[in-house]
Amino acid sequence: MSRPQAPEVLTRRWSEGGWQEAGDRLAAEEPLQLLIDGSPLSIVMRTPGNDVELALGLLWAERVVTDPAEVREVRVSAESGEREEAVRLLTDLIESNQVDVRLASGPGRRLERAFLSSSACGVCGATTVESLALDLPQVPDGPVVEPRLLAELAERLRGRQRLFDQTGGLHAAGLFDAAGELVVLREDVGRHNAVDKVVGRALLDGRLPLAGHLLVVSGRGGYEIVQKAVAASIPLVAAVGAPSSLAVATARRFGLTLVGFLRGGRFNVYSGPERLSA
Amino acid sequence: MSRPQAPEVLTRRWSEGGWQEAGDRLAAEEPLQLLIDGSPLSIVMRTPGNDVELALGLLWAERVVTDPAEVREVRVSAESGEREEAVRLLTDLIESNQVDVRLASGPGRRLERAFLSSSACGVCGATTVESLALDLPQVPDGPVVEPRLLAELAERLRGRQRLFDQTGGLHAAGLFDAAGELVVLREDVGRHNAVDKVVGRALLDGRLPLAGHLLVVSGRGGYEIVQKAVAASIPLVAAVGAPSSLAVATARRFGLTLVGFLRGGRFNVYSGPERLSA
Repeated sequence: MSRPQAPEVLTRRWSEGGWQEAGDRLAAEEPLQLLIDGSPLSIVMRTPGNDVELALGLLWAERVVTDPAEVREVRVSAESGEREEAVRLLTDLIESNQVDVRLASGPGRRLERAFLSSSACGVCGATTVESLALDLPQVPDGPVVEPRLLAELAERLRGRQRLFDQTGGLHAAGLFDAAGELVVLREDVGRHNAVDKVVGRALLDGRLPLAGHLLVVSGRGGYEIVQKAVAASIPLVAAVGAPSSLAVATARRFGLTLVGFLRGGRFNVYSGPERLSA
Repeated sequence: MSRPQAPEVLTRRWSEGGWQEAGDRLAAEEPLQLLIDGSPLSIVMRTPGNDVELALGLLWAERVVTDPAEVREVRVSAESGEREEAVRLLTDLIESNQVDVRLASGPGRRLERAFLSSSACGVCGATTVESLALDLPQVPDGPVVEPRLLAELAERLRGRQRLFDQTGGLHAAGLFDAAGELVVLREDVGRHNAVDKVVGRALLDGRLPLAGHLLVVSGRGGYEIVQKAVAASIPLVAAVGAPSSLAVATARRFGLTLVGFLRGGRFNVYSGPERLSA
């Protein structure tokens, strides 16, 4: 029942030589309706697939779920292709593109932070600037990583990006252990979604919190990426692109090591240099 | 009162040769509180500056504002550095990072689509998948553009990106007329924000709808970019990066010409090839 993640279309290509007809594979983007206890909460524009991971990872980042035991049941539409995947999964909904997360205690006050999200969203949850003052813990100490090892991780991530090779249009997030072994890779049109899927997978696998792990993202290192990593207790984030000022400030505030411009065997450290050996 | 858009930080740089200390300029990212008639509506993570444009462009894309006359007044905080810029601007708020848009008739039912937005958000507004069926008009006919001219626009945009050169971390959106002249360029950590600022500028200048114009964006061509262009009646969007499947479907549905991979003197046309000459 799983849908193709790289649908093919016919395009017209122009170059100096003139026009050509050609087939092209697109990065799939579709809206996902996220529900909590049956009530619509949010729409996320995402690449279909691993929708349960996405929903759980997003709820974890937003602190709606802070303990895996709070997730009583996850219902997904039959079309998502994930019948077998989640821990406690019913497939009694017939609509497509829906994930309904049923909580053990009801969402309670946490849904005061009702939110909407897009393929690249992540600040969902706050309705005033003050509420951005997040109630997150400091990230745990360690690990200490060899710079030479870290410098290789962008290529390791890129080498495993199956869909990017087809479409040129997908972001990736890769979770590595401290020895540089890839634990899980997810691709999505939204880089925040890719991170949510990684964290949701960790939740399903009982791996949260992710102390001792490294997160490598293919795009820029914005605020939301750092916030999601802090919520999952990931101590080191490395972005292939540039960090933003708020990402650096947030990383410093919560003791996270933030690396940017991880490419070509080089990188810059913006926060937490103590996790990189001399 | 305007804040630096590229704050400098001290970083540690690693390459094969070892560690170096170096200064680095960051892309500025800060939360903007958007209010409607004094009520908090949304937080947008954005690069500070041109916040009035951003607020108005976002409200235009969300169809909260569909006529410039509906904007009675815009109040910005004293710190935004835009005292002089908006049409009817009061600066009687003392908090920073706030824009309050006062509407002539009150927001009415349009705010049922309450939304939250991030530096890369844009689907804000829908709370069910059904409501994504947008009530937007078809984009107007014309213009017809020389492919050779279009192929040059990515370099023209890049050549004018002042902040990207400093930070490597900002998206750009450029509005061009049909002759390829740049009308307005905006840079932001969020590419959706850059588009909102362009459209908000056009609203302030009395240029909406933008029939006869071309929009070039530095990143990928996702759904939200196309949706914002349709809302502003821009008939052609060209992205330096890849389009998504939903962007192509939306472009086809509303008659917009969508171009992707605009770089190196080449591009692909995914929708509306009739606006490019043979």
